[in-house]
Amino acid sequence: MRTIRWDRGTITTIDQTLLPVECKSIECKNVNTLCEAIVSLRIRGAPALGAAGGYGVALAAHTGTAGTLSEFMRDIEIESDRIRRTRPTAINLTWGVDRVIVAVRRASSIDEAKRIALSEATAIADEDVERNTQLSRHGAALLDDGDTVLTHCNAGRLACVDVGTALGVIRAAVEEGKVLSVVSCETRPLNQGSRLTVWELMQDTIPVTLIPDSAAGTMMRKGLIDKVIVGADRITKDAVFNKIGTYTHSVLAKEHKVPFYVAAPISTFDSTRLERDVTIEERDPDELRRINDVMLAPADAAVYNPAFDATPVENVTAVITEDGVVYPAESESWNDLFF
Amino acid sequence: MRTIRWDRGTITTIDQTLLPVECKSIECKNVNTLCEAIVSLRIRGAPALGAAGGYGVALAAHTGTAGTLSEFMRDIEIESDRIRRTRPTAINLTWGVDRVIVAVRRASSIDEAKRIALSEATAIADEDVERNTQLSRHGAALLDDGDTVLTHCNAGRLACVDVGTALGVIRAAVEEGKVLSVVSCETRPLNQGSRLTVWELMQDTIPVTLIPDSAAGTMMRKGLIDKVIVGADRITKDAVFNKIGTYTHSVLAKEHKVPFYVAAPISTFDSTRLERDVTIEERDPDELRRINDVMLAPADAAVYNPAFDATPVENVTAVITEDGVVYPAESESWNDLFF
Repeated sequence: MRTIRWDRGTITTIDQTLLPVECKSIECKNVNTLCEAIVSLRIRGAPALGAAGGYGVALAAHTGTAGTLSEFMRDIEIESDRIRRTRPTAINLTWGVDRVIVAVRRASSIDEAKRIALSEATAIADEDVERNTQLSRHGAALLDDGDTVLTHCNAGRLACVDVGTALGVIRAAVEEGKVLSVVSCETRPLNQGSRLTVWELMQDTIPVTLIPDSAAGTMMRKGLIDKVIVGADRITKDAVFNKIGTYTHSVLAKEHKVPFYVAAPISTFDSTRLERDVTIEERDPDELRRINDVMLAPADAAVYNPAFDATPVENVTAVITEDGVVYPAESESWNDLFF
Repeated sequence: MRTIRWDRGTITTIDQTLLPVECKSIECKNVNTLCEAIVSLRIRGAPALGAAGGYGVALAAHTGTAGTLSEFMRDIEIESDRIRRTRPTAINLTWGVDRVIVAVRRASSIDEAKRIALSEATAIADEDVERNTQLSRHGAALLDDGDTVLTHCNAGRLACVDVGTALGVIRAAVEEGKVLSVVSCETRPLNQGSRLTVWELMQDTIPVTLIPDSAAGTMMRKGLIDKVIVGADRITKDAVFNKIGTYTHSVLAKEHKVPFYVAAPISTFDSTRLERDVTIEERDPDELRRINDVMLAPADAAVYNPAFDATPVENVTAVITEDGVVYPAESESWNDLFF
C-alpha cells in the first residue's frame, strides 16, 4: 500500500503519529487538513513530502472555487505558499509544490488546470516509486552478505510514496539474497526510528534491533556496525541535511572507518544554496519536555530542539541516487550534480 | 538537604523516578525496599550508591535477628551480596558495601557490629560530601568565565550524598563568580539529564538548556560548546565507564578539540580490572519500547539497551578527583592511581 495516494479529490495517507500502535489512514479533503497533517508529522519524510506537496496543489485546484482562470491561479499560488511554509527545511516539499505549479501555469482553462495539477502530482508519486526502486538497486551493491547496517530516523516506505530510500536499499539487498541485520536508532525526540523504522522492518521480517541514539558510538567501537545508511532532507554541494543526530553518526563512522552512505533521490539536491544559506527548523520545546502527559523535564525548561543537522560531505562515503552511486571525494562527478 | 540519609533505622532518599514532577522522599526500613529502590533507580548515581551500599549494610545490621555473632555476620554477608548484585557495573555500590563489611568484621559482639556498621556508613556519606567539595574546587579552575559546558546524565547533587561531581564543579565555578551556562543532554532512555540535571540546575538558577543526546555533535561543530564534563561509574586504567552516550561525546569532543573532563572521586577508580574485565549491565528493553503507557516501539521489538559505555582514557583530557586533577596523557601520574 502506498503511504500517500489520491482518490477522487481526497488525499489518503497513513497517520504516522499513531504508529506503532495503530496503522490507520487519514483523509485530507482540503488544504487546511493537509497542512495540519504535515505540521503534525502525520505525513513526513522527504520524498513523501514531495508527493504531499504535489497532491496538495492538486487538492487546492480540485477545491478551487474562483470563477476566472486568473483568480483561480492566484488562489492556487496562495494555497501553495501555505503548503510550502509548513516545513521550511524539507526541500522536496517545495520541489513538489513548484513542479505542479509550473505545470499548471500552462493551462488555458480552469478545468485544464485541475487536470494538469492532478496528472503532474500523480507523476511525482509514480516517479518516486520508480526512482526509489532504481536507487535501491544501486545501493544494494554496496551492502555485503552478513552486514549489520545502522540507520537513523525513518528513510523507509513510510517516508516515501513506497519502497523507501535507506530502507529501500536494505530491502533490495535482502531481495538479492543477502542476509542483513539492521540497527535502528530511536531518533529522539519524535522516535521515528523506534516508531516507524522498527515497525516497517518487522513487517518485512528483516531483523532489526532498536538502540538509543547514544549507543551508536559504543557499537561502532565494538565493531558491531558494518555500514551506516541514512536518508536526506536536502543535499547541498557542501553538506547533507538530515534528522538531528546524523552528523554525530558521521563523525563516529569516520572515527571507526565505517562507510557512511546517504540514500536520496536527485530531487533532494539543492544547487542553489550552500550549507550556510539553509535555515534549520527548530521545533516545539515540548517535544523534549514531555511525551503525552508524562513530564520528562520541568515544564519551563529551556530547550534547543533543531529538527536537522548538517553533515559536511567530507564525512560522506557515497550518496546513492536513482542515477547511481556518487562519491563526494571524487569532486568532478560530485560537482556535476550541482550546476 | 542530603540525597540520602539515615535516621533511627530508616534510610531516607529522594525518589528520583518522580522528578521533575515531584520532589518526594521514600523511606527504606529493610534491605528489600532498599534493593528495589536501587534496581528501580529511585536512588542512582555512583557516589550516592556508595552511600546506599554502606547504609544498606547498616540497615542489614540494624534489622538483623540472629542470636549469635557468627550467625549475625553470616546474615549480613548474605544481605550485602543481594545489595551488591542490584547494579553490577557501579563500583561504588560494591565499594560502599565492602567498606562497611570489612569494618564490621572487627566487632566482638552483635551490638558492636551494629554500632560499627552505622558509624562506618555515616563516615562514607560524610566523606562523600567532603570529597565532592574538594573535587569541585579543583575542577572549577578548569572552567573559564563565559564557558558553555555540556554534561550528560546526572552527576549532580542527586547522584551523590550532596554537592555533586560534574555539577559540583560547575557550582563551584559559579560560586567563584564565573558566568557559565550548561547544556544538558536528555540522556536516553531514562532521561536523567532532562529529569534530574535540568531540575537541579534550575533549582540553583544556573542557566541550563536541554538538548536531545543526538544534538551534541552539531552544537560542537558550531562552536557552541567550550567544555564537556561528565561523571563516572567506574574508572579503570584504560577506560572510563559512564552512562551510555559518554563515549560518543568523547569522540565528538576529540573531533572538535573540546576538552573532555571526567569528575569522579577516587572511590570510582578500579585498580583490579581493565576495560575487558568489566561487565556492562544491560537494562530492560521496555525502557526503549515505552514511557509509562505510551508505546514508542512495537511491544516485541528487539532492543539493545546497555546502561553504560566505556570511553578509552586516550579520549579523556583530565580526570578531576578530590586529590586534584590528573591527566591520563601524563602516564606516570595516571599510573600512580592504579596499583
